[in-house]
Amino acid sequence: MKTYKLIIGFEGTRFSGWQIQPNSESIQQHLEEALTILLREKTAITGSGRTDAGVHAEGLVAHFKTEQTFDLTKTLRSLNGILPEDIRVFSLEPAPDSFHARYSAKGKIYTYSFYHSHCHDPLIRRTTLFVGCPLDYSLLEQGCRRLEGEHDFAGFQNAGTPVKDTVRTIFHIKFSQNGPLKTLEFCGNGFLYKMVRNMVGMLLDVAKGKRPLEDIEKVLASKDRRLCSAAAPPQGLCLKQVMY
Amino acid sequence: MKTYKLIIGFEGTRFSGWQIQPNSESIQQHLEEALTILLREKTAITGSGRTDAGVHAEGLVAHFKTEQTFDLTKTLRSLNGILPEDIRVFSLEPAPDSFHARYSAKGKIYTYSFYHSHCHDPLIRRTTLFVGCPLDYSLLEQGCRRLEGEHDFAGFQNAGTPVKDTVRTIFHIKFSQNGPLKTLEFCGNGFLYKMVRNMVGMLLDVAKGKRPLEDIEKVLASKDRRLCSAAAPPQGLCLKQVMY
Repeated sequence: MKTYKLIIGFEGTRFSGWQIQPNSESIQQHLEEALTILLREKTAITGSGRTDAGVHAEGLVAHFKTEQTFDLTKTLRSLNGILPEDIRVFSLEPAPDSFHARYSAKGKIYTYSFYHSHCHDPLIRRTTLFVGCPLDYSLLEQGCRRLEGEHDFAGFQNAGTPVKDTVRTIFHIKFSQNGPLKTLEFCGNGFLYKMVRNMVGMLLDVAKGKRPLEDIEKVLASKDRRLCSAAAPPQGLCLKQVMY
Repeated sequence: MKTYKLIIGFEGTRFSGWQIQPNSESIQQHLEEALTILLREKTAITGSGRTDAGVHAEGLVAHFKTEQTFDLTKTLRSLNGILPEDIRVFSLEPAPDSFHARYSAKGKIYTYSFYHSHCHDPLIRRTTLFVGCPLDYSLLEQGCRRLEGEHDFAGFQNAGTPVKDTVRTIFHIKFSQNGPLKTLEFCGNGFLYKMVRNMVGMLLDVAKGKRPLEDIEKVLASKDRRLCSAAAPPQGLCLKQVMY
């Protein structure tokens, strides 16, 4: 069996998320169906991690194994011909036998984008959150600094698949802006369930003046999700890169 | 009667274009209906020009006249509350009595964006054209230079509303790129019906090597639309700014 690595982009708007689920449309299902057609054998695909309903990706990584030999370039083109237009495979390459999209991952980069103005920009409404109220960007930046580094992020994790170790390291949270379009880039060695959206919810509440900066440390110290702000909505989130 | 100026943005994907037409959904119709509700009187709105089905805008200008007095900020907010999420009014301001969105315009800026790679980026597929074949960017740039300046653009005009004078001046065509995302910016004193999309169709054919550079001059000299390439599809086009 040979292992192949895929890099995938999708607009998550109409999907229930990455993972196959009964009675809903997932990215994994579309990819498995397309590969099963092209390789003429039932093909299972493993992703670098789940993404939630409505979340986007520009660099989700997945792998599959097959005995078949096939032309990489032609198969990549055929895959993109079969897939719906909101899912695209950017690359398809052989990988070492030991490669595992999830277990081999050393880190991930997510971005969360929001549009800060008196009304939204209709052209980017599917990939950004709209924020209409005043924000203190100095507080936002200070909040980012308090989340960086190694912490137990249990307080920023939603209930879901239980995880033994909730300690993660955030290498950096980089804030950038292009006019009213603001982006927070989160680079870390791993992220818990809904952790990025919970951090963004908290950072926006701090920037809105709804919660003091110190509450960030309180959520970290308490490890209690109930102390955290509501998760920011999915449309601003994008998985940009998985690092190996 | 006082005159008011609006700056409007919309994602044109699902609309038949700016102008009210029977049995189809237009941006003008949505705006007139929203203003008629808010001002409690039948309100007609005049745009800076038509846009075709599927074409976008980040800076279309329109005006309307009313005797009513109203709070500008509140009305702007209410307008955006009533409008569908793919249309937004960015500003609403009083204008001089003599202001006319179409006749007062001194020029316009359009952009045409395309994504040049082996497959499209699903996150921007509604606002860019996908180009998968090789392009010679030196030829593209040279083509731009040949279109700039004052010319009779009759050969780049589709049949539509007859126009007496088909001479227009293109101040500049600026090519820029951000990785595979390429943008052509057209700044001119006016554009004929489908002129930008016809120029882009021609420029792409030249860059693909399908037609020689000299054909651009031939289309200009002949004033014959039949010599021009097919118009580029609407989704890459965006009206960025109207200059007064």
